[in-house]
Amino acid sequence: MNIQEWPGGTFSGQTCYKTKQSNMNKTAKTTFEIHPLLRERWSPRAFSNRMVETDKLFRMLEAARWSPSSSNEQPWRFIIGLKGDETYMKIYDTFVEFNQLWAKTAPVLMLSVGHRMSLKNQGKPNVSYVYDVGQAVAHLTIQAMSDGLFVHQMGGFDKEAAARFFDVPAEFEVLTAIAVGYIGDPEVLHPNLKKMEYAERERRPLDTMMFRTKFGTPASFEL
Amino acid sequence: MNIQEWPGGTFSGQTCYKTKQSNMNKTAKTTFEIHPLLRERWSPRAFSNRMVETDKLFRMLEAARWSPSSSNEQPWRFIIGLKGDETYMKIYDTFVEFNQLWAKTAPVLMLSVGHRMSLKNQGKPNVSYVYDVGQAVAHLTIQAMSDGLFVHQMGGFDKEAAARFFDVPAEFEVLTAIAVGYIGDPEVLHPNLKKMEYAERERRPLDTMMFRTKFGTPASFEL
Repeated sequence: MNIQEWPGGTFSGQTCYKTKQSNMNKTAKTTFEIHPLLRERWSPRAFSNRMVETDKLFRMLEAARWSPSSSNEQPWRFIIGLKGDETYMKIYDTFVEFNQLWAKTAPVLMLSVGHRMSLKNQGKPNVSYVYDVGQAVAHLTIQAMSDGLFVHQMGGFDKEAAARFFDVPAEFEVLTAIAVGYIGDPEVLHPNLKKMEYAERERRPLDTMMFRTKFGTPASFEL
Repeated sequence: MNIQEWPGGTFSGQTCYKTKQSNMNKTAKTTFEIHPLLRERWSPRAFSNRMVETDKLFRMLEAARWSPSSSNEQPWRFIIGLKGDETYMKIYDTFVEFNQLWAKTAPVLMLSVGHRMSLKNQGKPNVSYVYDVGQAVAHLTIQAMSDGLFVHQMGGFDKEAAARFFDVPAEFEVLTAIAVGYIGDPEVLHPNLKKMEYAERERRPLDTMMFRTKFGTPASFEL
């Protein structure tokens, strides 16, 4: 399926590197059909130098904004850097060397931050903030995909330095870094990374993650 | 927009309660346009008694399976109960009274479970498992939406009891409960819940969650 034929997106005619590289197959090899926005999602390391349009950036954040959260606490916050600005450089500087190798190709770098404390029950912790920020970033990612953009999340960065650089208060926690952009040419990557960029996507079998009756007992349902 | 006109879904002609209730408006009131699967998503409490088709159930799990995770650890596991079976009853029994009030209308109840430990670095904790399970459930939710189903996640249940009921090993953590089904008639709900079912969805303003330069400084980008 040509990426430009995706149904459901606001995708409007961008060229996508995937369509040019016949030796790259990142489509999820599913047993059961899933929505194209989920099936075609993957986390690239080579981004195009094309800047992300501001309206698409806002749409991604809007998608995160409307994601669900425990008691509607909305514990997600985002710090956004565009290539060339100081925020981008500060975020980049916190990355481990491996991530610095490739993340410099991304036109947008963000940090996701979670609110450890509840706003509805003053003084009490929000036990669900990490989970809920994960969900918000997933929604952001699906929105990005529908606009022809790709997202690559990272845990490999100095979260304490990031908190310091941006004066993140103690009741908030820096959780992940997020690279966003259009797909680029894998050939610009370091040889080791290039290999990963061409590799097929892999997942453990479905029956090792869905159980019934007892944890570990594969769920079997008649089709 | 009629829910049956959604682009991008495999949605195929189910009637949806939303289309029958002109006094119900759950569409996200966005400033920036987002994908219909994200915009129309909400967490209902009144489900139809129509069972979820097995292929749709598998598609939801397949979507979770292909979601991203730190180092591709895939820390998500699911325990799945269908109305009428023992797993369903056990999950239901762990719910707080408030959730029991409405969740009995859902044809499917699941538990999400996270693996605390890394599989790639034996003996080390996976610092990202909660976040990654959150993402997997978001992907599951979007897939459900594209099949005309709705999801309502809960934190209000006895997680220790759930772990005990299903022999969940100590290195796994029960995280959330998940109700899935087709939209039902809000009129069957308890009066307090009925009011919530008709209420508009609300979110904090975008500029309180997207920052630049410094945490708390609203990001402004020219459109």
